[in-house]
Amino acid sequence: MKQFDLIIRNGTVVTASDTMQCDIGIAGGRIVQLGHDLGEAAQVIDASGKLVLPGGVDAHCHLDQPMPDGLRMADDFRTGSVSAACGGTTTVIPFAAQEKGHSLRAAVADYHRRAGGKSVVDYAFHLIVADPTEAVLNDELPGLIREGYSSFKVYMTYDDLKLNDREILEVLSVARQEGALVMVHAENSDCIAWLTDKLEAAGNTAPKFHALARPMAIEREATHRAITFSELVDVPILIVHVSGKEAVEQIRWARNRGMKIFAETCPQYLFLTAEDLDQPGYHGAKCVCSPPPRDRSNQQVIWDGLADGLFTIFSSDHAPFRYEDAQGKKPGGQEVPFQYIPNGIPGLETRLPLLFSAGVVGGRISVNQFVALTSTNPAKLYGLHPRKGTIAIGADADLAIWDPQREVTIRNTDLHHAVDYTPYEGLRVTGWPVTTLVRGKVVAHEGEVMAEAGHGEFLPCGLPEMARPRYRTSGGTL
Amino acid sequence: MKQFDLIIRNGTVVTASDTMQCDIGIAGGRIVQLGHDLGEAAQVIDASGKLVLPGGVDAHCHLDQPMPDGLRMADDFRTGSVSAACGGTTTVIPFAAQEKGHSLRAAVADYHRRAGGKSVVDYAFHLIVADPTEAVLNDELPGLIREGYSSFKVYMTYDDLKLNDREILEVLSVARQEGALVMVHAENSDCIAWLTDKLEAAGNTAPKFHALARPMAIEREATHRAITFSELVDVPILIVHVSGKEAVEQIRWARNRGMKIFAETCPQYLFLTAEDLDQPGYHGAKCVCSPPPRDRSNQQVIWDGLADGLFTIFSSDHAPFRYEDAQGKKPGGQEVPFQYIPNGIPGLETRLPLLFSAGVVGGRISVNQFVALTSTNPAKLYGLHPRKGTIAIGADADLAIWDPQREVTIRNTDLHHAVDYTPYEGLRVTGWPVTTLVRGKVVAHEGEVMAEAGHGEFLPCGLPEMARPRYRTSGGTL
Amino acid sequence: MKQFDLIIRNGTVVTASDTMQCDIGIAGGRIVQLGHDLGEAAQVIDASGKLVLPGGVDAHCHLDQPMPDGLRMADDFRTGSVSAACGGTTTVIPFAAQEKGHSLRAAVADYHRRAGGKSVVDYAFHLIVADPTEAVLNDELPGLIREGYSSFKVYMTYDDLKLNDREILEVLSVARQEGALVMVHAENSDCIAWLTDKLEAAGNTAPKFHALARPMAIEREATHRAITFSELVDVPILIVHVSGKEAVEQIRWARNRGMKIFAETCPQYLFLTAEDLDQPGYHGAKCVCSPPPRDRSNQQVIWDGLADGLFTIFSSDHAPFRYEDAQGKKPGGQEVPFQYIPNGIPGLETRLPLLFSAGVVGGRISVNQFVALTSTNPAKLYGLHPRKGTIAIGADADLAIWDPQREVTIRNTDLHHAVDYTPYEGLRVTGWPVTTLVRGKVVAHEGEVMAEAGHGEFLPCGLPEMARPRYRTSGGTL
Amino acid sequence: MKQFDLIIRNGTVVTASDTMQCDIGIAGGRIVQLGHDLGEAAQVIDASGKLVLPGGVDAHCHLDQPMPDGLRMADDFRTGSVSAACGGTTTVIPFAAQEKGHSLRAAVADYHRRAGGKSVVDYAFHLIVADPTEAVLNDELPGLIREGYSSFKVYMTYDDLKLNDREILEVLSVARQEGALVMVHAENSDCIAWLTDKLEAAGNTAPKFHALARPMAIEREATHRAITFSELVDVPILIVHVSGKEAVEQIRWARNRGMKIFAETCPQYLFLTAEDLDQPGYHGAKCVCSPPPRDRSNQQVIWDGLADGLFTIFSSDHAPFRYEDAQGKKPGGQEVPFQYIPNGIPGLETRLPLLFSAGVVGGRISVNQFVALTSTNPAKLYGLHPRKGTIAIGADADLAIWDPQREVTIRNTDLHHAVDYTPYEGLRVTGWPVTTLVRGKVVAHEGEVMAEAGHGEFLPCGLPEMARPRYRTSGGTL
Repeated sequence: MKQFDLIIRNGTVVTASDTMQCDIGIAGGRIVQLGHDLGEAAQVIDASGKLVLPGGVDAHCHLDQPMPDGLRMADDFRTGSVSAACGGTTTVIPFAAQEKGHSLRAAVADYHRRAGGKSVVDYAFHLIVADPTEAVLNDELPGLIREGYSSFKVYMTYDDLKLNDREILEVLSVARQEGALVMVHAENSDCIAWLTDKLEAAGNTAPKFHALARPMAIEREATHRAITFSELVDVPILIVHVSGKEAVEQIRWARNRGMKIFAETCPQYLFLTAEDLDQPGYHGAKCVCSPPPRDRSNQQVIWDGLADGLFTIFSSDHAPFRYEDAQGKKPGGQEVPFQYIPNGIPGLETRLPLLFSAGVVGGRISVNQFVALTSTNPAKLYGLHPRKGTIAIGADADLAIWDPQREVTIRNTDLHHAVDYTPYEGLRVTGWPVTTLVRGKVVAHEGEVMAEAGHGEFLPCGLPEMARPRYRTSGGTL
Repeated sequence: MKQFDLIIRNGTVVTASDTMQCDIGIAGGRIVQLGHDLGEAAQVIDASGKLVLPGGVDAHCHLDQPMPDGLRMADDFRTGSVSAACGGTTTVIPFAAQEKGHSLRAAVADYHRRAGGKSVVDYAFHLIVADPTEAVLNDELPGLIREGYSSFKVYMTYDDLKLNDREILEVLSVARQEGALVMVHAENSDCIAWLTDKLEAAGNTAPKFHALARPMAIEREATHRAITFSELVDVPILIVHVSGKEAVEQIRWARNRGMKIFAETCPQYLFLTAEDLDQPGYHGAKCVCSPPPRDRSNQQVIWDGLADGLFTIFSSDHAPFRYEDAQGKKPGGQEVPFQYIPNGIPGLETRLPLLFSAGVVGGRISVNQFVALTSTNPAKLYGLHPRKGTIAIGADADLAIWDPQREVTIRNTDLHHAVDYTPYEGLRVTGWPVTTLVRGKVVAHEGEVMAEAGHGEFLPCGLPEMARPRYRTSGGTL
Repeated sequence: MKQFDLIIRNGTVVTASDTMQCDIGIAGGRIVQLGHDLGEAAQVIDASGKLVLPGGVDAHCHLDQPMPDGLRMADDFRTGSVSAACGGTTTVIPFAAQEKGHSLRAAVADYHRRAGGKSVVDYAFHLIVADPTEAVLNDELPGLIREGYSSFKVYMTYDDLKLNDREILEVLSVARQEGALVMVHAENSDCIAWLTDKLEAAGNTAPKFHALARPMAIEREATHRAITFSELVDVPILIVHVSGKEAVEQIRWARNRGMKIFAETCPQYLFLTAEDLDQPGYHGAKCVCSPPPRDRSNQQVIWDGLADGLFTIFSSDHAPFRYEDAQGKKPGGQEVPFQYIPNGIPGLETRLPLLFSAGVVGGRISVNQFVALTSTNPAKLYGLHPRKGTIAIGADADLAIWDPQREVTIRNTDLHHAVDYTPYEGLRVTGWPVTTLVRGKVVAHEGEVMAEAGHGEFLPCGLPEMARPRYRTSGGTL
Repeated sequence: MKQFDLIIRNGTVVTASDTMQCDIGIAGGRIVQLGHDLGEAAQVIDASGKLVLPGGVDAHCHLDQPMPDGLRMADDFRTGSVSAACGGTTTVIPFAAQEKGHSLRAAVADYHRRAGGKSVVDYAFHLIVADPTEAVLNDELPGLIREGYSSFKVYMTYDDLKLNDREILEVLSVARQEGALVMVHAENSDCIAWLTDKLEAAGNTAPKFHALARPMAIEREATHRAITFSELVDVPILIVHVSGKEAVEQIRWARNRGMKIFAETCPQYLFLTAEDLDQPGYHGAKCVCSPPPRDRSNQQVIWDGLADGLFTIFSSDHAPFRYEDAQGKKPGGQEVPFQYIPNGIPGLETRLPLLFSAGVVGGRISVNQFVALTSTNPAKLYGLHPRKGTIAIGADADLAIWDPQREVTIRNTDLHHAVDYTPYEGLRVTGWPVTTLVRGKVVAHEGEVMAEAGHGEFLPCGLPEMARPRYRTSGGTL
């Protein structure tokens, strides 16, 4: 008789396409059997009345990323990964960010040092290409792609990160040649600077003016421009953190022309609006992120895009800055004009519960779409599938066991990140991940971390699956 | 130890989201185990080097449907189902068609008589509502929906079938109230009649003029109108057999506005063009179907829509009329003007191989998308999932074992329908379903039918899954 | 020296393209000289500080039109034309309406009897084709077009008027063959009936529900359908009384494809909203017209379309029913459910002042655009130019002398129609036509009619100028 | 009796809105009388059988503009203005171009030196802002606008001219504040550079590759971006030399959103295609201009845009470089790679005949639209109306007398520019301007120049009329 290390019994197993009642047999950290009456195992978890989902893959988050100007991200790989685990996420993909004037390989090496031995969940790296020199384009990037860093982000804004149009075209060309995927932060840098200066000149410096400095037209423009680059180079791209209608329309327009434009959105575009930046005093700084949240009608557009397949992935864009912190939202200890507030909000731990509650329980998407958007699709898009992102024979036993009926009020005191606030404080949700397993080991249970720092492993990524739909018959294997 | 009736070993198992190497344990006609080393079974099929896919669900086909004007469909449930089985399809959903002036229940009863004891694959019925009287709307339809006939088709053209705008609104209202799904044949009847009369008056009666009598503008207009009805009633609809760009644009436009408009396309819009109606002599009659095939640029638009998720399902619209037949393409034994040629082409058996070859092997869609479009999605859309349309614990063991490398030249002599031609004669494809199982029993193998007529069972349909995404937590069970 | 019958001195003369300081010499009812120091004349009007504009051409109004169901239009050609004259309009084009089952020629003959000897301004007739029999299509229409009735309207709604799709195609074919212009009332009849029945069943019968029974989607749908007919027949059409965004988008879409779709709008879509139907008691009935007024955002869309050239003409759609009248807004003396309220509002006299004030004085359009939209373009579109619609040598001396600074509060007691209300009661405007001349004779001055009934002449129309842009050089003359 | 300097008798006088038979009385260089029997005059021109049109206003042309890299424009104000006059154009508006690092006022002063005493037609200056320093933005530009330089062009490409996004926003802000109009050359510079380098690396350097280096996507992207700037600053802009469908769609999209985006097109987008760049040897260099001509389907889109009002003006973009010239199309005497060929083609003299023939005689636009597009609208748009651009009392007597039936084969030997070729060699046209008058003086007749260099005067421009539609009643005058 087959001996399993672990059997998860009586759960409702959910994948991106199916929902089934069955037990899961796990051995060697992998899923090896699905069915009933699987026999004995060293450990048994009873999942009666629970959903067993593939653990979340958070494909857009920032952890311990070196920052300019004396800023510091509050979460490192330990606190970040614990927060992820407690929120049902089993793989994170933060960014190894090149500094202008420095090598990309150096950034990767540095980032491994920061990550090593700390994470309780598995992790891969995206690259941020901030300085696409000849050496980077011709040597470093192709090499790194083949070594498992197959996705990279380019910025159309932020002074320390942004590339000009020509540089983006060059980076896309490398992606095309190597089969890699480029993520694009689409906002027009010059327009932001111009509006910011006008706002500042008028004395409009409160956090709420952050939203006025980045109206949707400038996200739309950059989205259109990025699509044009994709068209010229003939390579798929991913537009990250799409915030609303005008950007969505550009993406639909491109698809209508047969282009492969992927899109990502985030919780802040479903659960926050620009009004959340207009809180008493300086508290709006807690919701300053880019693009900024829009309004309710745009939230609906984002929901529609999640339901109808416009969006391929749903990520947190977790960017952890403490509010009461001179290295965080109050740089140098000051309540600064909006343009100096570090951009980003925390969200690793709340990403899945928010979408589950309002999306699945709320009837806007199916539980299978939930799995696809938060786990299967990011795993496929970034070359981690079929090892990650699903419940299938041979896959890593990365699982989140959900109590679909548990009602939880979100409190920052209950969260595990190192940030001193959550933008969703007080929000009530239905459904919560009670137990999280990474490669067959329980890493979090009922809000307690159960694994040592370092349980999490680095994952080299294959090429993006969705950019290579061809069914390969060559070589005699499938 | 678990005893299986059948184990399928060493295959590559594919679902709408996953691809995995594993064995499948089958008992009682159902899939009960997935994994390795499943032990013994009464029967073992070695699927080494093969793909094991969920059997196809052909959600749009016509079999033994009563016809007016002395016409007769060549395929009944026996020949049709054998053809389906040999082409990898394990469930068919033909139409029980109401006659104007008659009851819908009578049509269902009659259609059960035609189907009973004949099919080798399982089958459900769509309804065609041709006469939505008060009795039909208030009594027959609601009752039939609850009894398992949860989808029905309305026609905007064809004199014996078409409904006026008001009638369509009434039918959609019933669908909304009951949670059923309405399929719409979208072409403007009056425009067709007007163009047909003009063509006839000019002596343009050859088969090729069928395409000119039904330009895409006419399909586009009816699509827009159907979308408007969907908007007014606030109910999802499915636009069937979408042929090209202008209709696709209307559907994208509707989705951009947050509407739930489903779309189906068929092989003829990928592999035929209007030029196929312009063959020497009368042979173009073989490709007369509605909407007519368009041109190559529209084929590309359809491919794009399959790849990017615009289309939810891919069906055959199998409508079997023999070419050399006074009850078929030559009514009364004559080569008639185009408007008297019965509309429709055969395609049950070739649907899957054509899409697999040009789509999956050709690199346009992934094998998982193939499964979704041809099996999982139609099963979900018509309330047959999770029993049908997937490979999951508890699902019926409806499977198609594919040799992904087999090269086949399509010849009508090798097909199993009762039609005397195929529009795809001579086309070479790569990939073929070599063995087909329905509920664990091999029904076709290497082009031979292996099951008795009557193996196929009638399937009452639940409500369309995609129109009820809500995750139900009520009642304490999932 | 040239002897003039009349000189208008010192005015600012405005045409659709120019604004100039000059005198106008008039003889024989025509403009014969433009310049300064024109010499002597029998009569001189000093227009110092005034604008001299071409008299308005109201190309969409209803006067003394035979009505079903015991209804009666309040204005005949006498009161209607006096009202027009006092509002700066010098030509009206009401409708000779065919009754189903009767001949079109009979309608024309009857309408001449109604008009003869009554009007103080010149008039032409549009036709309403309500029963396009073979005789009408092949004989009456072609004959009438050549006799000066070159524009006709078809209705997609109203039981006593509406044509089906096939009939509209046939009428458009005649227009194409003869070079005539078809005006389309675009609303989906079945959708209105279905919504009306649902509203009535729910007890929602107040006037305000008129707007809910005719949402913009049904105007949009019919507009799309009409555009499709125009495309199939390959003939320009005019969409009358466009009410808002969704219909406008269809028209822009058609133009983007190179189609010639003309559009008209009316004051009610700039100055009223659906809220005006929701007045205390039954007073909302005063604003019941079709399509119904929409909301403020749609008003802006209509303004944008006027400014940027989307709309070719601006008409009143004057349809005069008295409020306190058993033959008017209270049929049989009752406050009836909304669907029985006769559709239409008065507006002949207020059309020009409203647009002048909010458009020209308000800075939304230039005074030249004002002239184009209200006079020159309708004259060109309906074959009355260059005799009507401009100030040019040889044109009829149809003039409106405006005081651009006069401030007027609109009061029904000051208006000259036979209707007992105006929807614009109390609205303040800047600019008013103080003197109106038809063929050189003052017909109205400071709100007093100055001409005898019968001064107005019938105008046979040429073919629509805008549908024949070709500069003809044949025959040696221009 | 009124004494005229000149009477033009028996012509058909055409304005942007009207066509009339009348005589024109001219005194003091102005039109002072329109009518019949005007009496005696010092000079009489018999225009029987002819059209009398407002002289053309060519609002986009380059004359004697200082060039970098040893290049030289072949036409100065003398040859250019003679060519214009012989082609029916009476006003030209070339560009005073700022050099980076230099002042704008210096450029204007220099350009006056180049123009002074040379032109036979009147002229105004646009500015090219190539270096928007604080001094330029805050001082020079506002001052120059008020002095009669109220329109300026910004480039999104060309290394010596292009502005970055921020600079364009700053320039637009000045335009908004002062009521001036900004013209935008919309092509993405980086994309062109990237494609050019790729083409060059592949050895693709022939003139025809110029078109491949500037595909329409690049023009579309820049057009979208410019529209975004217009939206952010809230100021109208003019997109110059629009070449085809994708750019047109962006403009229609903007207008659909209520924006005021003006558009210009040129003869090369109606009469040339990219194939004209693919001539034997190096001759394709003659048709190298930017954006490049597209294909026939795009020509149709441009025609549609002219007919339906999308385009406000039609200009030549005359940029005169000789083919056999080391300072022209063969820099340094070489047949250079495409990216070194000076951009631009000659067209001052052929602009009007080409559009008249294919547009008016060809039936695509009316003769009034012709006048509007080529004369009235540019005069209004650039603040020269009502002095220029029309035939009205008080306007300058700038007239072109056309023989609408004359058939002419275009030959460079018959043209008057200093360029040694025309791209339209051998093209047959119907209609030709036989006599051209500037301020009442014949400056060209039957291809002979009749005026002295220096007859032409500099025209200070008012603010763009179309950007200030408000009818001003302030100050008691109109």
